[in-house]
Amino acid sequence: MNTLNLMVVVNIHEKLHSKQGTVCIFGTGDFGRSLGLRLLQAGYEVVFGSRDPMNNSLVPKGSKIMVHTEAAQMARVIFIAVQRDHYQFLTSLTSALEGKVLVDISNNLKMGQYPQSNAEYLSSLVPGASVVKGFNTVSAWALQSGALDASRQVLLCGDDPGAKQAVVDIAHSLGLNTQDRGSLRAAGEIENIPLQLFPNWRLPLWIAAGLTAFFFFYLLIRDVIYAYVENNQDISYRIMITLANKVFPIVALVMLALCYLPGALAAILQLYNGTKYKRFPDWLDRWMLCRKQLGLLALLFAVLHVIYTFIISIRYNVIHERHTDVIKQIKDNKSLPFDNTEAWATDSFLSLGVLGFVLLLMLGITSLPSVSNTLNWREFRFVQSKLGHLTLLLCTTHCLLYGWDKFLKASTYKWYTPPGFMLCLVTPCVVLVLKLALCIPCVDSRITRIRNGWESSGARRRQGPAEMLKATTL
Amino acid sequence: MNTLNLMVVVNIHEKLHSKQGTVCIFGTGDFGRSLGLRLLQAGYEVVFGSRDPMNNSLVPKGSKIMVHTEAAQMARVIFIAVQRDHYQFLTSLTSALEGKVLVDISNNLKMGQYPQSNAEYLSSLVPGASVVKGFNTVSAWALQSGALDASRQVLLCGDDPGAKQAVVDIAHSLGLNTQDRGSLRAAGEIENIPLQLFPNWRLPLWIAAGLTAFFFFYLLIRDVIYAYVENNQDISYRIMITLANKVFPIVALVMLALCYLPGALAAILQLYNGTKYKRFPDWLDRWMLCRKQLGLLALLFAVLHVIYTFIISIRYNVIHERHTDVIKQIKDNKSLPFDNTEAWATDSFLSLGVLGFVLLLMLGITSLPSVSNTLNWREFRFVQSKLGHLTLLLCTTHCLLYGWDKFLKASTYKWYTPPGFMLCLVTPCVVLVLKLALCIPCVDSRITRIRNGWESSGARRRQGPAEMLKATTL
Amino acid sequence: MNTLNLMVVVNIHEKLHSKQGTVCIFGTGDFGRSLGLRLLQAGYEVVFGSRDPMNNSLVPKGSKIMVHTEAAQMARVIFIAVQRDHYQFLTSLTSALEGKVLVDISNNLKMGQYPQSNAEYLSSLVPGASVVKGFNTVSAWALQSGALDASRQVLLCGDDPGAKQAVVDIAHSLGLNTQDRGSLRAAGEIENIPLQLFPNWRLPLWIAAGLTAFFFFYLLIRDVIYAYVENNQDISYRIMITLANKVFPIVALVMLALCYLPGALAAILQLYNGTKYKRFPDWLDRWMLCRKQLGLLALLFAVLHVIYTFIISIRYNVIHERHTDVIKQIKDNKSLPFDNTEAWATDSFLSLGVLGFVLLLMLGITSLPSVSNTLNWREFRFVQSKLGHLTLLLCTTHCLLYGWDKFLKASTYKWYTPPGFMLCLVTPCVVLVLKLALCIPCVDSRITRIRNGWESSGARRRQGPAEMLKATTL
Repeated sequence: MNTLNLMVVVNIHEKLHSKQGTVCIFGTGDFGRSLGLRLLQAGYEVVFGSRDPMNNSLVPKGSKIMVHTEAAQMARVIFIAVQRDHYQFLTSLTSALEGKVLVDISNNLKMGQYPQSNAEYLSSLVPGASVVKGFNTVSAWALQSGALDASRQVLLCGDDPGAKQAVVDIAHSLGLNTQDRGSLRAAGEIENIPLQLFPNWRLPLWIAAGLTAFFFFYLLIRDVIYAYVENNQDISYRIMITLANKVFPIVALVMLALCYLPGALAAILQLYNGTKYKRFPDWLDRWMLCRKQLGLLALLFAVLHVIYTFIISIRYNVIHERHTDVIKQIKDNKSLPFDNTEAWATDSFLSLGVLGFVLLLMLGITSLPSVSNTLNWREFRFVQSKLGHLTLLLCTTHCLLYGWDKFLKASTYKWYTPPGFMLCLVTPCVVLVLKLALCIPCVDSRITRIRNGWESSGARRRQGPAEMLKATTL
Repeated sequence: MNTLNLMVVVNIHEKLHSKQGTVCIFGTGDFGRSLGLRLLQAGYEVVFGSRDPMNNSLVPKGSKIMVHTEAAQMARVIFIAVQRDHYQFLTSLTSALEGKVLVDISNNLKMGQYPQSNAEYLSSLVPGASVVKGFNTVSAWALQSGALDASRQVLLCGDDPGAKQAVVDIAHSLGLNTQDRGSLRAAGEIENIPLQLFPNWRLPLWIAAGLTAFFFFYLLIRDVIYAYVENNQDISYRIMITLANKVFPIVALVMLALCYLPGALAAILQLYNGTKYKRFPDWLDRWMLCRKQLGLLALLFAVLHVIYTFIISIRYNVIHERHTDVIKQIKDNKSLPFDNTEAWATDSFLSLGVLGFVLLLMLGITSLPSVSNTLNWREFRFVQSKLGHLTLLLCTTHCLLYGWDKFLKASTYKWYTPPGFMLCLVTPCVVLVLKLALCIPCVDSRITRIRNGWESSGARRRQGPAEMLKATTL
Repeated sequence: MNTLNLMVVVNIHEKLHSKQGTVCIFGTGDFGRSLGLRLLQAGYEVVFGSRDPMNNSLVPKGSKIMVHTEAAQMARVIFIAVQRDHYQFLTSLTSALEGKVLVDISNNLKMGQYPQSNAEYLSSLVPGASVVKGFNTVSAWALQSGALDASRQVLLCGDDPGAKQAVVDIAHSLGLNTQDRGSLRAAGEIENIPLQLFPNWRLPLWIAAGLTAFFFFYLLIRDVIYAYVENNQDISYRIMITLANKVFPIVALVMLALCYLPGALAAILQLYNGTKYKRFPDWLDRWMLCRKQLGLLALLFAVLHVIYTFIISIRYNVIHERHTDVIKQIKDNKSLPFDNTEAWATDSFLSLGVLGFVLLLMLGITSLPSVSNTLNWREFRFVQSKLGHLTLLLCTTHCLLYGWDKFLKASTYKWYTPPGFMLCLVTPCVVLVLKLALCIPCVDSRITRIRNGWESSGARRRQGPAEMLKATTL
C-alpha cells in the first residue's frame, strides 16, 4: 500500500511540479520550430531531436537540442516534424521509441500521393510506438502568431486511447480544441483535409456553372442568333452586358429557390413518413448540406445583376438608343404621353428588386461566422427561414412584374420558346407554393409535432437517428 | 491520518486515472446523443439512462445504456435531456438521485409557458439533488459540429456551488466558456434566452419604424396629396421610389444622429454632476446600450437610399422627363446654358454623400464582431467616435447642400410646412453643436479628468459605481 | 517520507478542494472590480486590498475587502489595479509583499509618458516581489461582458518563470489565451500596445495618400489647368467627381499591384539566393507584412471609383452634355450611326471592370478574420494568390481597354505628358509579367523545391531561419 501510495504521490508531485512536462520534437523545420516555441510559451520543456545537434542556431531559445536517441528518452510524446520521405531513419531508433507516443503531423503535396497514409506508414516502421495523427491541419504560421487568428481545431486519430489523450492534453494546453476522429485508419482522411479545395462548394459551383451555361446559350439563341437569322441584324455586342444581365438574375433566382426547396421536400418526406427518425435519401442530405453555399452563390449572382443594372445608363448603346428615340420623336413631331401605369409598374418592379436584394444582402451578412455566432437558435431560424422566404417572395414578384405585360404577347415567344425569365420562375413558384401549403395550420402543427419527436402510428421508420433533422431545422 | 491520506490519494488517483470521470445522461434525444458524443470525444465515460435500455441503436458508440436507476449510480453529474412534460417520472427515482447533480438543459417553446422555471420545477420534484440550470443556450448542432462554429458561452445557475463547479469543469473540458448567473432563481431568465428574438434590436427597430411612418406620411401629404389637391395632378407613381428615396436618407441621418446624441448627453450629465460615479437615468442607459443597433439601422437605410439613387436614370419617369425636356428645348429653339455654380453644387452634394456613405460602411464593417475584436481600445474609440462624428458631419453637409438654394424660396414651404430634409437636419445639427462645445479645450480637459475618476468638490454623487461609464467611453 | 508525503498530499488536497485558490486585487476601480467579478465566476476566492475597507459597497458580491497588508497575506498573486501615480504607497508594504507575485495591469495615457515602464518602476519600488506585466491589453468591459466579445489574448512578461506561470494559470482559468513576451524589459512594449493606433496601416495609408496626391495634381494640371490655359475654359467643377473618379481607379490599381509585387520580388530573391534560409532585406519584410492592408485600401479606392461611376448619369453636367449633344444632332439634321465596335469596346471595358471589382470584393470578404479562419491553408492560398492575380489581370485589362483607341492619338499627350491611366499601368504590367515568368514550369519547380527546404549547392545563405517564408507563402 505504502509503495503504491508513494508512487502515485510522487507521480502527481512530478506532474504538478514540472507543470507541463517535457515534449520532444524530431526535426527543426518551420513547423517543428513554431511548435517548439508555442510549447515553451505554454510552459513545457522542449527537446529537439536532430542529426546535427551542434547546429542549434535554429531552435527557439529555452529549448534543448540532442541527437535523436537521447532526445527520445526525455519525453513520452514525440512530434515527428519530418517529411515522410525521411521517415526511414526512424527504423534505426526502434528501441529508443519503444512505448513512446509518436505524433505524425505530416502533410502531403497532393491527394493520394502514397497508397498508405503517412501515419500508418510511420506505425508500420515503428510498431513498438503508439502513433497518433494530428496537428497537420494547424499551420506553423497560426501556431506562431497566436491561435486567435486561425482555426483552432486539431483533428486527431490513433489506435491507443492513452496516447491520444496525451496529445489531447498538449493541444488543450496550447489553447487548441480537439476532435477525435477515431482509429488510425482515419489518418488518410485527416491528411487529405489540408489538401481539400472548398469541398462544400463543389456541388453548388457545378449547379451555378450548369445553370449559367444553359441560360446563356438559350438566351444567345433567342436574342442574338434570332435577330441575326430573322432580321439579319448584328446585335452581338449585347453579349457582354445585356445578355449577362439577363442570365445573372435568372441564375440568382433559381439558386435562391434551390436553397429553400430541400427544406420543403424534407418537411413533406417527414409528413409522409410520419416520423423524423427516418433517414433522408442521400441526395437530399447532400443537397441540404450545401444550402448555405447555394444561398451565397445566389447572392454573388444578384450582386453581379445589380452592378450590371447600375451601369445601364452609361453604356454606349443605351445612350445612343435614347438619343435616337428623342430624335425620332422630334422628327415625327409628336411626344409620347406620360403613361402612369407604366411608371407604377416599372417603379414597383425596381423597388421590389431593391428590397429583395437588400434582404438577400442581410442574409449573407448574417451567415458570416462571427455574426451567426452572436445569434441564438431562434434568431438564426427567424433570419434564415422567415426572412429567407420573404426574400424569395420579393425576388419572385420582382421577376413576375418584369414580365407583367409580356406573358400574353405572341412576340414574346420567339421561335415558340418561352423567354428566360418565364423558365426561371418555375422553381421559385414551386417552392413558394410548397411553403404556403406547409404553413396551413393543420399541416404546420403536424410537422411541429413530428419534429418534436412525435411519431404517427403508421410511421414508416426504418433506420437509426436522422441526424439530418438538425439540418432541416437550422 | 493514514485513512484520510489514503482516501485523498485514491480519490486523486482515480481522478487522474479515469481522466475525466463518468457522466450520466437521461434521455436519448438529439441533444442527449450530441452531448454524449462530445463528452466521449473529450475523454469522459458516458452512461445513458433510458426506459428501454435494450434499444441502444441510437446512442453514440462507446457509451453505455442502462435503466435510469442503474445509470444514476454510475456518475455524480446527470444531464436531464428530457422534456419538462416527462419530468414526473423522476419522482420515482428520488433515492437514486439523492445527492446527485442534476443539470437541467431544457428549453420551452415560448416565453412564460409555465409559471415556474423548468429547473425550479425539477428541484421541487427531486429535493435531495442539487439542480444546476445550464447548456440550454448551446444547440445540439453546435455540440456535434465542434464548438468553433457556434457560441461557446454556457450560462449556469444553481444554489449549490460545488454542483455548479462540477458542471463548470465539464463545460471547460468540452471547450466551452461558462458564465455564472447566480442562484437557481435565475433559471427562468436563462430559459428565456434561447426564446428571445433580437431583444437589443427592439427599441431601435421601433424608432426606425416610427420615423419611417412619420416622414412617409408627412411627405405623402406634402408631395402627392398637395399636387393632387392644388394642381389636380396624379403623381402617385412617385410613392414607390421618389418618395421612398426621400424617406430613407432622412431616417438614416436622424438614426445616425440619435446614435451619437446619448454620448453627448452623458458627457453633459457628467459635467453637471462633476463625477462619473453617479448612475445615469434609466432612459439614457437604455439608449446608450442600443447605439450600435441604431448605427447599423442607419447604415441599412443609407444602403437603400444609395441603391434607389443609383437606379434613378433607368426609371421610366426620369427618362420620359428628360426626353420631354429636350423636346421642349428644341421646340422653344433655345438651349439652356451650362451653369457652373449648379455643376459645382450638385457635384459637391453627390461627392459628400458618397464619402459619408463609404465612411458609414466602414463603421459598419468595423462593428462586425470578428473585426472589432482585432482592434485595441484606442483604435475602436478612434473609429467609432472620431470617424463616426466625421461621418455625421459629412452626411449633414450632404443634406444641407441638397437644400442650399431652397431654404429661402417660398415655394419650398408648401402649405406652410417645411420640407422633410429641413426637419431631419434638426437632430444632427444639435449633435454636432454639442460635440463641438464638448471639444472646447477647457470643457474637454474637465471631462477627461472626470472620466479618469476625478470628482469635483460639489460632486452630485448618489449611487454606487456607474457601470455605464464603460458604455460611455467605448 | 511520511511527512513529505503528507505535505504533498495536503498541498494537493487543498489545491483540489479550494479549486482555484485565492487572488488578491489592490484597488477597487473599474478594472479591479471587473477582474474580481470574473475571478469569482471562475471559482477563485477574491480579496480586495483597500485604504478604506469599510467602504465595501463597490466590490462584487462574494469577495472580501481588507486593508492592504492583510489582503496581501491571503494570496500569492496580487493584481495592482492602481494608477502608476499612486504606486508610491506600495513601498510601505515591502515586507508584506516579500515573495509575492505582483501583476502590473496599468496603462498610460500616451506613449513614452514616463522614461521607465510602469512594471519596471513597480519592480524597483518592491524589489522583494516578482513583478509580471500583463492583462493591460484586456479591457474591463471585455472581462465583464464575457470574453467572447473581445480579444482574448493576454500578453505577459516578467523575470521569474514561476511567477509568470502563476499568472498564466489564472488567465487560462478565465478563458483567456496567453502569450509570453519574455523578460520584464519587454514591459514597455506591452504597455504601448493599447496606445497604438493602427500601426500596420501606417505605411499603406502613407502610400495611398502619396499616390492620391500625386495623381490628383498631375491630372489637375493635365485636365483643368490645361483647359484653362490653352482654351481659357473653366471646367473646375470637374474636380469634385470627374477628376476624383480618375484618381481613385488609378490609385486602386497601383495599390493592388503593390500588394502582389513583393511576393514576386521575394520569389526572385529566393531563386537568386538558391535558398529560403536567407533573410530578406528589411524593406521587403516590411512591405510583405502590409500586403493585406494594401489590398484592403485598393478595395476602398475601388469602391469609391465604382460609386462615383454609378452616379455619372444623374450628374448635372452629364445630363446637360447629353441634351446638348442631342440638340446639336437635330440642328445639324444628322443622327450618329450606331458603332458596333464602340459598343463592343465599351461594354467589354465595363464588364471587365465589374468582374474585377466583384472578385476584389470577394478577396476583401475572405480576409475578414472570421471567414479566413474557416479556410485551410490551400484554400487561403488559392483565394489570395490565384484569385488575386486574376483580379489584377482583369483590372489591368479593364484599364487597357479604357485607353484602347487613345494610345496612338497625339491629342492624348497634352503638354507632352502621358495620361494618368498610362502611368498607372506600369506597376500592374510589371507584376503580371513577373508572375508569368515565375509560372514557367522550370522556374516554378525550382521555386517549389526551394520553398520545401531544398538549397542549391552555391546557396547564398547567411543568416538564421527566414521566418519570412511564411509571409511569402501565406
